Amino acid sequence: MQLYDGGRAPNPRRVRMFLAEKGIDIPKVPVDLAKMEQAGDAFKALNPLQRVPVLVLDDGTPIAESMAICRYFEALHPEPNLFGRDPKEIALIEMWIRRVELNFYSPVSTVFRHLHPAMAEREVPQIPAWGEANKSKALAFLALLDFELGKRKFVAGDRFTVADIVAAITTDFMRVAKLEVPADMKNIHRWFNEISARPAFAA
Amino acid sequence: MQLYDGGRAPNPRRVRMFLAEKGIDIPKVPVDLAKMEQAGDAFKALNPLQRVPVLVLDDGTPIAESMAICRYFEALHPEPNLFGRDPKEIALIEMWIRRVELNFYSPVSTVFRHLHPAMAEREVPQIPAWGEANKSKALAFLALLDFELGKRKFVAGDRFTVADIVAAITTDFMRVAKLEVPADMKNIHRWFNEISARPAFAA
Repeated sequence: MQLYDGGRAPNPRRVRMFLAEKGIDIPKVPVDLAKMEQAGDAFKALNPLQRVPVLVLDDGTPIAESMAICRYFEALHPEPNLFGRDPKEIALIEMWIRRVELNFYSPVSTVFRHLHPAMAEREVPQIPAWGEANKSKALAFLALLDFELGKRKFVAGDRFTVADIVAAITTDFMRVAKLEVPADMKNIHRWFNEISARPAFAA
Repeated sequence: MQLYDGGRAPNPRRVRMFLAEKGIDIPKVPVDLAKMEQAGDAFKALNPLQRVPVLVLDDGTPIAESMAICRYFEALHPEPNLFGRDPKEIALIEMWIRRVELNFYSPVSTVFRHLHPAMAEREVPQIPAWGEANKSKALAFLALLDFELGKRKFVAGDRFTVADIVAAITTDFMRVAKLEVPADMKNIHRWFNEISARPAFAA
Protein backbone atom coordinates (compact mmCIF):
# COMPACT_ATOMS: atom_id res chain seq x y z
CA MET A 1 0.00 0.00 0.00
CA GLN A 2 1.34 3.44 -0.93
CA LEU A 3 -0.01 6.96 -0.45
CA TYR A 4 0.69 9.41 -3.27
CA ASP A 5 1.04 12.56 -1.26
CA GLY A 6 1.09 16.26 -2.08
CA GLY A 7 2.88 18.33 0.52
CA ARG A 8 1.04 21.24 2.15
CA ALA A 9 -2.10 21.21 -0.05
CA PRO A 10 -5.20 20.81 2.13
CA ASN A 11 -6.48 17.45 0.86
CA PRO A 12 -3.25 15.51 1.39
CA ARG A 13 -2.95 17.16 4.83
CA ARG A 14 -6.40 15.83 5.82
CA VAL A 15 -5.30 12.28 5.13
CA ARG A 16 -1.94 12.66 6.88
CA MET A 17 -3.59 14.13 9.99
CA PHE A 18 -6.21 11.37 9.95
CA LEU A 19 -3.53 8.66 9.72
CA ALA A 20 -1.49 10.31 12.48
CA GLU A 21 -4.56 10.42 14.77
CA LYS A 22 -5.07 6.71 14.06
CA GLY A 23 -1.39 5.93 14.62
CA ILE A 24 -1.06 4.45 11.11
CA ASP A 25 2.20 4.78 9.21
CA ILE A 26 2.31 3.85 5.51
CA PRO A 27 4.84 4.47 2.74
CA LYS A 28 4.38 7.80 0.95
CA VAL A 29 5.30 8.77 -2.60
CA PRO A 30 5.74 12.54 -2.96
CA VAL A 31 3.96 14.21 -5.89
CA ASP A 32 5.46 17.60 -6.74
CA LEU A 33 2.48 19.87 -7.43
CA ALA A 34 4.72 22.86 -8.20
CA LYS A 35 6.20 20.83 -11.06
CA MET A 36 2.68 19.68 -12.11
CA GLU A 37 3.63 16.01 -11.60
CA GLN A 38 -0.09 15.32 -11.04
CA ALA A 39 -0.71 16.16 -14.73
CA GLY A 40 1.87 13.65 -16.00
CA ASP A 41 0.88 10.35 -17.60
CA ALA A 42 2.12 8.22 -14.70
CA PHE A 43 -0.09 10.02 -12.19
CA LYS A 44 -3.06 10.35 -14.54
CA ALA A 45 -3.10 6.53 -14.78
CA LEU A 46 -3.84 6.55 -11.03
CA ASN A 47 -6.24 9.50 -11.05
CA PRO A 48 -7.43 10.92 -14.38
CA LEU A 49 -8.77 13.91 -12.42
CA GLN A 50 -5.14 14.79 -11.59
CA ARG A 51 -5.63 15.34 -7.89
CA VAL A 52 -3.76 14.23 -4.80
CA PRO A 53 -3.88 12.29 -2.57
CA VAL A 54 -4.28 8.80 -4.04
CA LEU A 55 -3.93 5.59 -2.05
CA VAL A 56 -2.82 2.59 -4.10
CA LEU A 57 -3.89 -0.70 -2.52
CA ASP A 58 -1.75 -3.85 -2.61
CA ASP A 59 -3.89 -5.21 -5.47
CA GLY A 60 -3.13 -2.05 -7.50
CA THR A 61 -6.53 -0.37 -7.04
CA PRO A 62 -6.16 3.41 -6.77
CA ILE A 63 -8.41 5.19 -4.25
CA ALA A 64 -8.69 8.95 -4.81
CA GLU A 65 -10.53 11.58 -2.73
CA SER A 66 -9.31 12.36 0.78
CA MET A 67 -12.50 11.29 2.57
CA ALA A 68 -12.63 7.99 0.65
CA ILE A 69 -9.07 7.23 1.77
CA CYS A 70 -9.95 8.13 5.37
CA ARG A 71 -13.03 5.89 5.27
CA TYR A 72 -10.89 3.02 3.97
CA PHE A 73 -8.63 3.26 7.00
CA GLU A 74 -11.57 3.77 9.39
CA ALA A 75 -13.04 0.48 8.12
CA LEU A 76 -9.68 -1.32 8.42
CA HIS A 77 -8.70 0.19 11.78
CA PRO A 78 -11.89 1.22 13.61
CA GLU A 79 -10.12 2.64 16.68
CA PRO A 80 -9.83 5.44 17.61
CA ASN A 81 -13.22 6.03 15.98
CA LEU A 82 -13.33 9.25 13.95
CA PHE A 83 -16.45 8.80 11.74
CA GLY A 84 -19.11 7.98 14.38
CA ARG A 85 -20.24 5.02 16.48
CA ASP A 86 -24.03 4.93 16.04
CA PRO A 87 -26.50 6.07 13.37
CA LYS A 88 -27.05 9.51 14.90
CA GLU A 89 -23.36 10.28 15.45
CA ILE A 90 -22.46 8.92 11.99
CA ALA A 91 -25.05 11.28 10.49
CA LEU A 92 -23.98 14.34 12.50
CA ILE A 93 -20.31 13.87 11.60
CA GLU A 94 -21.14 13.45 7.88
CA MET A 95 -23.43 16.51 8.07
CA TRP A 96 -20.63 18.64 9.47
CA ILE A 97 -17.98 17.31 7.05
CA ARG A 98 -20.27 18.32 4.19
CA ARG A 99 -21.30 21.65 5.65
CA VAL A 100 -17.63 22.52 6.14
CA GLU A 101 -16.64 21.38 2.67
CA LEU A 102 -19.49 23.01 0.75
CA ASN A 103 -19.76 26.26 2.70
CA PHE A 104 -16.21 26.84 3.94
CA TYR A 105 -13.57 24.79 2.10
CA SER A 106 -15.14 25.41 -1.30
CA PRO A 107 -15.40 29.22 -0.87
CA VAL A 108 -11.87 29.51 0.62
CA SER A 109 -10.51 27.42 -2.24
CA THR A 110 -12.44 29.56 -4.76
CA VAL A 111 -10.98 32.77 -3.29
CA PHE A 112 -7.52 31.26 -3.71
CA ARG A 113 -8.07 29.87 -7.19
CA HIS A 114 -9.80 32.92 -8.67
CA LEU A 115 -7.78 35.71 -7.02
CA HIS A 116 -4.26 34.41 -6.46
CA PRO A 117 -1.77 35.29 -9.25
CA ALA A 118 -0.11 31.87 -8.81
CA MET A 119 -3.33 30.21 -10.01
CA ALA A 120 -3.80 32.28 -13.17
CA GLU A 121 -2.48 29.52 -15.42
CA ARG A 122 -4.30 26.69 -13.64
CA GLU A 123 -7.76 28.13 -13.07
CA VAL A 124 -8.87 29.07 -16.58
CA PRO A 125 -10.79 31.31 -16.83
CA GLN A 126 -9.78 32.97 -13.57
CA ILE A 127 -12.76 35.17 -12.64
CA PRO A 128 -11.84 37.70 -9.93
CA ALA A 129 -15.49 38.73 -9.38
CA TRP A 130 -16.27 35.10 -8.44
CA GLY A 131 -13.28 35.01 -6.10
CA GLU A 132 -14.42 38.21 -4.40
CA ALA A 133 -18.00 36.93 -4.02
CA ASN A 134 -16.70 33.91 -2.11
CA LYS A 135 -14.98 35.93 0.62
CA SER A 136 -18.31 36.74 2.26
CA LYS A 137 -19.55 33.15 1.81
CA ALA A 138 -16.53 31.81 3.71
CA LEU A 139 -16.93 34.35 6.50
CA ALA A 140 -20.69 33.77 6.79
CA PHE A 141 -20.10 30.07 7.41
CA LEU A 142 -17.33 30.83 9.89
CA ALA A 143 -19.81 32.99 11.84
CA LEU A 144 -22.21 30.03 11.98
CA LEU A 145 -19.43 27.69 13.09
CA ASP A 146 -18.34 30.22 15.74
CA PHE A 147 -21.90 30.19 17.10
CA GLU A 148 -21.98 26.37 17.13
CA LEU A 149 -18.59 26.13 18.85
CA GLY A 150 -20.01 28.28 21.63
CA LYS A 151 -22.38 25.38 22.40
CA ARG A 152 -19.96 22.45 22.26
CA LYS A 153 -16.26 21.63 22.25
CA PHE A 154 -15.81 20.17 18.75
CA VAL A 155 -17.33 20.67 15.29
CA ALA A 156 -19.66 17.66 15.28
CA GLY A 157 -20.16 17.04 19.00
CA ASP A 158 -18.36 16.60 22.32
CA ARG A 159 -15.41 14.66 20.98
CA PHE A 160 -12.73 15.07 18.30
CA THR A 161 -13.72 13.61 14.89
CA VAL A 162 -12.77 13.82 11.23
CA ALA A 163 -15.04 16.89 10.96
CA ASP A 164 -12.51 18.77 13.11
CA ILE A 165 -9.71 17.67 10.77
CA VAL A 166 -11.51 19.00 7.68
CA ALA A 167 -12.50 22.27 9.39
CA ALA A 168 -9.12 22.97 11.02
CA ILE A 169 -7.12 22.36 7.86
CA THR A 170 -9.50 24.68 5.97
CA THR A 171 -9.06 27.32 8.68
CA ASP A 172 -5.29 27.03 8.28
CA PHE A 173 -5.67 27.24 4.47
CA MET A 174 -7.35 30.66 4.83
CA ARG A 175 -3.90 32.23 5.09
CA VAL A 176 -2.99 31.08 1.58
CA ALA A 177 -6.23 32.68 0.32
CA LYS A 178 -5.31 35.86 2.27
CA LEU A 179 -8.34 35.51 4.55
CA GLU A 180 -8.36 35.90 8.35
CA VAL A 181 -10.56 34.63 11.14
CA PRO A 182 -12.08 37.81 12.60
CA ALA A 183 -10.70 38.55 16.09
CA ASP A 184 -14.17 38.55 17.65
CA MET A 185 -14.89 34.91 16.66
CA LYS A 186 -13.60 33.74 20.02
CA ASN A 187 -15.01 30.23 19.79
CA ILE A 188 -13.27 29.58 16.47
CA HIS A 189 -9.99 30.82 17.93
CA ARG A 190 -10.39 28.65 21.06
CA TRP A 191 -11.21 25.55 19.00
CA PHE A 192 -8.52 26.14 16.33
CA ASN A 193 -5.86 26.65 19.00
CA GLU A 194 -6.83 23.29 20.51
CA ILE A 195 -6.93 21.35 17.23
CA SER A 196 -3.74 22.85 15.84
CA ALA A 197 -1.92 21.94 19.08
CA ARG A 198 -2.58 18.22 18.50
CA PRO A 199 0.63 16.48 17.36
CA ALA A 200 -1.21 15.04 14.31
CA PHE A 201 -1.90 18.54 12.95
CA ALA A 202 1.77 18.85 11.94
CA ALA A 203 1.72 15.55 9.99
CA MET B 1 -39.09 10.98 12.62
CA GLN B 2 -39.98 13.39 9.79
CA LEU B 3 -38.30 14.27 6.52
CA TYR B 4 -38.54 17.91 5.45
CA ASP B 5 -38.68 17.43 1.73
CA GLY B 6 -38.32 19.73 -1.27
CA GLY B 7 -40.02 18.42 -4.38
CA ARG B 8 -37.98 17.97 -7.56
CA ALA B 9 -34.74 19.61 -6.38
CA PRO B 10 -31.84 17.14 -6.72
CA ASN B 11 -30.83 16.76 -3.06
CA PRO B 12 -34.30 15.80 -1.76
CA ARG B 13 -34.64 13.41 -4.71
CA ARG B 14 -31.43 11.62 -3.71
CA VAL B 15 -32.85 10.87 -0.28
CA ARG B 16 -36.26 9.81 -1.59
CA MET B 17 -34.69 7.44 -4.12
CA PHE B 18 -32.37 6.04 -1.44
CA LEU B 19 -35.31 5.42 0.93
CA ALA B 20 -37.35 3.82 -1.86
CA GLU B 21 -34.44 1.47 -2.73
CA LYS B 22 -34.28 0.52 0.96
CA GLY B 23 -38.05 0.08 1.18
CA ILE B 24 -38.29 2.67 3.97
CA ASP B 25 -41.36 4.87 4.25
CA ILE B 26 -41.32 7.83 6.65
CA PRO B 27 -43.60 10.86 7.09
CA LYS B 28 -42.66 13.82 4.87
CA VAL B 29 -43.23 17.52 5.42
CA PRO B 30 -43.24 19.44 2.14
CA VAL B 31 -41.08 22.59 1.99
CA ASP B 32 -42.16 24.94 -0.82
CA LEU B 33 -38.92 26.19 -2.38
CA ALA B 34 -40.78 28.36 -4.92
CA LYS B 35 -42.27 30.29 -1.97
CA MET B 36 -38.85 30.37 -0.24
CA GLU B 37 -40.18 28.50 2.81
CA GLN B 38 -36.63 27.30 3.44
CA ALA B 39 -35.67 30.91 4.27
CA GLY B 40 -38.41 31.28 6.92
CA ASP B 41 -37.66 31.27 10.65
CA ALA B 42 -39.33 27.90 11.25
CA PHE B 43 -37.11 26.13 8.72
CA LYS B 44 -33.96 28.09 9.63
CA ALA B 45 -34.32 26.71 13.17
CA LEU B 46 -33.82 23.25 11.61
CA ASN B 47 -31.13 24.25 9.13
CA PRO B 48 -29.57 27.72 9.34
CA LEU B 49 -28.05 27.04 5.90
CA GLN B 50 -31.62 27.04 4.49
CA ARG B 51 -31.32 23.88 2.48
CA VAL B 52 -33.51 20.83 2.05
CA PRO B 53 -33.75 18.00 2.86
CA VAL B 54 -33.63 17.84 6.67
CA LEU B 55 -34.44 14.74 8.70
CA VAL B 56 -35.73 15.46 12.21
CA LEU B 57 -35.13 12.55 14.58
CA ASP B 58 -37.57 11.56 17.33
CA ASP B 59 -35.41 13.36 19.92
CA GLY B 60 -35.69 16.57 17.85
CA THR B 61 -32.16 16.49 16.39
CA PRO B 62 -32.14 17.86 12.82
CA ILE B 63 -29.88 16.08 10.29
CA ALA B 64 -29.17 18.13 7.17
CA GLU B 65 -27.22 17.14 4.03
CA SER B 66 -28.58 14.42 1.77
CA MET B 67 -25.64 12.03 2.18
CA ALA B 68 -25.74 12.37 5.98
CA ILE B 69 -29.43 11.42 5.96
CA CYS B 70 -28.70 8.45 3.69
CA ARG B 71 -25.86 7.29 5.95
CA TYR B 72 -28.21 7.50 8.96
CA PHE B 73 -30.63 5.09 7.29
CA GLU B 74 -27.82 2.84 6.04
CA ALA B 75 -26.63 2.46 9.65
CA LEU B 76 -30.19 1.79 10.91
CA HIS B 77 -31.21 -0.52 8.05
CA PRO B 78 -28.07 -2.09 6.57
CA GLU B 79 -29.89 -4.07 3.85
CA PRO B 80 -29.93 -3.72 0.93
CA ASN B 81 -26.39 -2.35 1.33
CA LEU B 82 -25.79 0.82 -0.71
CA PHE B 83 -22.59 2.29 0.83
CA GLY B 84 -20.24 -0.72 0.63
CA ARG B 85 -19.55 -3.97 2.48
CA ASP B 86 -15.79 -4.01 3.01
CA PRO B 87 -13.03 -1.38 3.27
CA LYS B 88 -12.23 -1.39 -0.45
CA GLU B 89 -15.84 -1.18 -1.62
CA ILE B 90 -16.65 1.48 1.01
CA ALA B 91 -13.72 3.54 -0.30
CA LEU B 92 -14.60 3.11 -4.00
CA ILE B 93 -18.22 4.12 -3.44
CA GLU B 94 -17.20 7.20 -1.43
CA MET B 95 -14.62 8.06 -4.12
CA TRP B 96 -17.27 7.99 -6.84
CA ILE B 97 -19.86 9.89 -4.78
CA ARG B 98 -17.31 12.64 -4.33
CA ARG B 99 -16.01 12.60 -7.89
CA VAL B 100 -19.60 12.91 -9.14
CA GLU B 101 -20.47 15.68 -6.71
CA LEU B 102 -17.33 17.78 -7.17
CA ASN B 103 -16.85 17.35 -10.91
CA PHE B 104 -20.40 16.84 -12.20
CA TYR B 105 -23.11 17.93 -9.75
CA SER B 106 -21.24 21.09 -8.76
CA PRO B 107 -20.63 22.26 -12.38
CA VAL B 108 -24.19 21.41 -13.52
CA SER B 109 -25.58 23.27 -10.51
CA THR B 110 -23.26 26.22 -11.24
CA VAL B 111 -24.46 26.38 -14.86
CA PHE B 112 -28.04 26.50 -13.57
CA ARG B 113 -27.41 29.03 -10.79
CA HIS B 114 -25.25 31.42 -12.81
CA LEU B 115 -27.07 31.32 -16.16
CA HIS B 116 -30.75 30.63 -15.47
CA PRO B 117 -32.92 33.79 -15.26
CA ALA B 118 -34.98 32.16 -12.47
CA MET B 119 -31.87 32.20 -10.23
CA ALA B 120 -30.97 35.89 -10.75
CA GLU B 121 -32.41 36.92 -7.39
CA ARG B 122 -31.03 33.94 -5.45
CA GLU B 123 -27.48 33.65 -6.78
CA VAL B 124 -26.04 37.08 -6.06
CA PRO B 125 -23.90 38.05 -7.84
CA GLN B 126 -24.93 35.88 -10.78
CA ILE B 127 -21.80 35.64 -12.96
CA PRO B 128 -22.64 34.35 -16.46
CA ALA B 129 -18.96 33.87 -17.37
CA TRP B 130 -18.62 31.45 -14.45
CA GLY B 131 -21.75 29.61 -15.54
CA GLU B 132 -20.38 29.28 -19.08
CA ALA B 133 -17.01 28.02 -17.83
CA ASN B 134 -18.75 25.19 -16.00
CA LYS B 135 -20.42 23.73 -19.09
CA SER B 136 -17.15 22.24 -20.30
CA LYS B 137 -16.27 21.03 -16.78
CA ALA B 138 -19.54 19.08 -16.56
CA LEU B 139 -19.06 17.56 -20.01
CA ALA B 140 -15.42 16.67 -19.37
CA PHE B 141 -16.43 14.64 -16.32
CA LEU B 142 -19.27 13.01 -18.23
CA ALA B 143 -16.72 11.87 -20.84
CA LEU B 144 -14.65 10.26 -18.07
CA LEU B 145 -17.74 8.58 -16.63
CA ASP B 146 -18.73 7.37 -20.10
CA PHE B 147 -15.29 5.74 -20.41
CA GLU B 148 -15.63 4.12 -16.97
CA LEU B 149 -19.13 2.84 -17.70
CA GLY B 150 -17.68 1.07 -20.73
CA LYS B 151 -15.70 -1.09 -18.27
CA ARG B 152 -18.41 -1.93 -15.72
CA LYS B 153 -22.16 -1.87 -15.23
CA PHE B 154 -22.51 0.75 -12.46
CA VAL B 155 -20.72 3.91 -11.35
CA ALA B 156 -18.72 2.42 -8.46
CA GLY B 157 -18.55 -1.25 -9.46
CA ASP B 158 -20.60 -4.22 -10.58
CA ARG B 159 -23.65 -3.52 -8.46
CA PHE B 160 -26.08 -0.65 -7.87
CA THR B 161 -25.02 1.73 -5.05
CA VAL B 162 -25.69 5.21 -3.75
CA ALA B 163 -23.08 6.49 -6.25
CA ASP B 164 -25.55 5.61 -9.04
CA ILE B 165 -28.28 7.56 -7.24
CA VAL B 166 -26.15 10.70 -7.02
CA ALA B 167 -24.93 10.41 -10.62
CA ALA B 168 -28.32 9.58 -12.17
CA ILE B 169 -30.16 12.41 -10.43
CA THR B 170 -27.43 14.80 -11.55
CA THR B 171 -27.76 13.51 -15.12
CA ASP B 172 -31.51 14.15 -14.96
CA PHE B 173 -30.84 17.64 -13.50
CA MET B 174 -28.83 18.56 -16.63
CA ARG B 175 -32.13 19.34 -18.41
CA VAL B 176 -32.89 22.14 -15.93
CA ALA B 177 -29.43 23.59 -16.63
CA LYS B 178 -30.13 23.25 -20.39
CA LEU B 179 -27.33 20.72 -20.82
CA GLU B 180 -27.52 17.46 -22.76
CA VAL B 181 -25.66 14.17 -22.67
CA PRO B 182 -23.91 14.02 -26.06
CA ALA B 183 -25.44 11.32 -28.28
CA ASP B 184 -22.10 9.54 -28.72
CA MET B 185 -21.73 8.84 -24.98
CA LYS B 186 -23.36 5.47 -25.41
CA ASN B 187 -22.31 4.06 -22.05
CA ILE B 188 -23.88 6.97 -20.17
CA HIS B 189 -27.10 6.51 -22.12
CA ARG B 190 -27.14 2.73 -21.47
CA TRP B 191 -26.53 3.24 -17.74
CA PHE B 192 -28.94 6.17 -17.33
CA ASN B 193 -31.72 4.25 -19.08
CA GLU B 194 -31.21 1.40 -16.63
CA ILE B 195 -31.10 3.54 -13.47
CA SER B 196 -34.01 5.76 -14.48
CA ALA B 197 -36.14 2.64 -15.15
CA ARG B 198 -35.83 1.55 -11.49
CA PRO B 199 -39.11 2.20 -9.65
CA ALA B 200 -37.25 4.16 -6.94
CA PHE B 201 -36.10 6.77 -9.48
CA ALA B 202 -39.64 8.20 -9.57
CA ALA B 203 -39.81 8.58 -5.77
